[in-house]
Amino acid sequence: MKIASFSVKSDHHIGIVQDGQIISLTALGPDDFPACMKTFIERGSELRKRAEQLIEQRGNDDAKFSLSEVKFLPPIAQPEKIICVGLNYIDHCKETGMEPPASPVIFSKYANAIVGHNDVIEIPINSKEVDFEAELAIVIGKKAKNVSEEEANDYVFGYTIMNDISARDLQFQDGQWSRGKTADTFAPIGPVVVTHDEVGDPHELAISLELNGEMMQDSNTSNLIFTVPQIISFLSQSMTLKPGDLIATGTPPGVGMGRNPKVWLKNGDRMKISIERIGTLSNHVKA
Amino acid sequence: MKIASFSVKSDHHIGIVQDGQIISLTALGPDDFPACMKTFIERGSELRKRAEQLIEQRGNDDAKFSLSEVKFLPPIAQPEKIICVGLNYIDHCKETGMEPPASPVIFSKYANAIVGHNDVIEIPINSKEVDFEAELAIVIGKKAKNVSEEEANDYVFGYTIMNDISARDLQFQDGQWSRGKTADTFAPIGPVVVTHDEVGDPHELAISLELNGEMMQDSNTSNLIFTVPQIISFLSQSMTLKPGDLIATGTPPGVGMGRNPKVWLKNGDRMKISIERIGTLSNHVKA
Repeated sequence: MKIASFSVKSDHHIGIVQDGQIISLTALGPDDFPACMKTFIERGSELRKRAEQLIEQRGNDDAKFSLSEVKFLPPIAQPEKIICVGLNYIDHCKETGMEPPASPVIFSKYANAIVGHNDVIEIPINSKEVDFEAELAIVIGKKAKNVSEEEANDYVFGYTIMNDISARDLQFQDGQWSRGKTADTFAPIGPVVVTHDEVGDPHELAISLELNGEMMQDSNTSNLIFTVPQIISFLSQSMTLKPGDLIATGTPPGVGMGRNPKVWLKNGDRMKISIERIGTLSNHVKA
Repeated sequence: MKIASFSVKSDHHIGIVQDGQIISLTALGPDDFPACMKTFIERGSELRKRAEQLIEQRGNDDAKFSLSEVKFLPPIAQPEKIICVGLNYIDHCKETGMEPPASPVIFSKYANAIVGHNDVIEIPINSKEVDFEAELAIVIGKKAKNVSEEEANDYVFGYTIMNDISARDLQFQDGQWSRGKTADTFAPIGPVVVTHDEVGDPHELAISLELNGEMMQDSNTSNLIFTVPQIISFLSQSMTLKPGDLIATGTPPGVGMGRNPKVWLKNGDRMKISIERIGTLSNHVKA
């Protein structure tokens, strides 16, 4: 199931992307399906079954929209946590000049950073070195505390795409990375959340990023150092993961800071991140 | 005005602490004053005036509670951001062996870490080195983006106390501090938020922490390296600060890791943080 948050004529919906169109669950059953994906996730598998039934019946043509007539919103606008794993592809460690870590390196973004598919990424006034990072992001499905690697997959709702936009000058000025990672608009996500059953194994997905049509990152999630279950189990030892929490799993090589000459984002740049079985997230840059 | 979130017999309220009792705004005017301080802050100065009027009239004795019959809740349970400033007192830099920073060092907690006055701090299963840090926390009153130091005070709603609980082993294992800082229960806040007009100058407040009755930290916010306006202006250059956001301003010397022998929190420990003109935040430890 590919689930989207979207708006049509200023009304907000959640819906299912299928056969090149979106079916609004909010239009089919507004009481059951408020236009908030976090609520949808929190309410669990019963509600997902009800969504599947509704989609199967599809009585209501007013609930179908073409992809071109909707505006995609960030699938989840106010997660409690946006947790990021750094240095999680060997070749990306090499290009940054850093050692592969012995355990996951964790940093944070806040919800102020979230924007959606086709939204603008704004370069803040205090940075001249803004970079891109294509990442597979986990969407947590239910509360997880002290879970083992073996049971960790039970806590995954699905997956989406995140562009982990990074102001390198701020990131390395602080030593602590978060400030350079959580400027407004620095966490584009979407366009959809794909449920875990439809993604299958998250460690065999092609992942790539194009900047102005040129391939900059081109890898596969099989190259992750720490896997999805390892990351979830590790984090849950100290913090309770909650429905709708996002965990960005790290980026493969090819980012702007690893190039010679370095490549920084500038006004008008267009990016496309594609992850197999999930989709394509597009954003453009405004300086 | 000293504002508290509290519960009585499982009903949630916000109210004003005055003359040794709490007057529930939620009981006096439930439509105007939902039991959520973030909403109260968002609705701005008009609503604060209405609160003052209600308190002045005080017709309703059912709205008054003694401090001993209420349970204090975290003043704000779900801020978008809990931003922490590290190394912001010279003497604390010395005890950690780190250089005073040239600009504020920023790290993060998430709302999973928030607990209230008298709540338990739990030592996570993966840490053996949990420490305390008394801090003055700013509560943001309205949206702030690209604000100057001169205008920064206009964006402060008030102040509260935070104990910036820190798992030193996790903090320094990562290099990135956030994971060691945002375990569940690692951000006790409260007991009240005091509005900026009642606090006056936030840079002349005695701040202290007692552990099991022994004074461990004893300083004054006059020793802050970066002031409240400097911090707000600095952060707002890249991120939009929002009503209810919390900014912990750093801790003075005396923390457990700076002592010889080092002092780590253990089961049954009791802490009290006092900040002049704000109050006293008490918590105890469960291993």
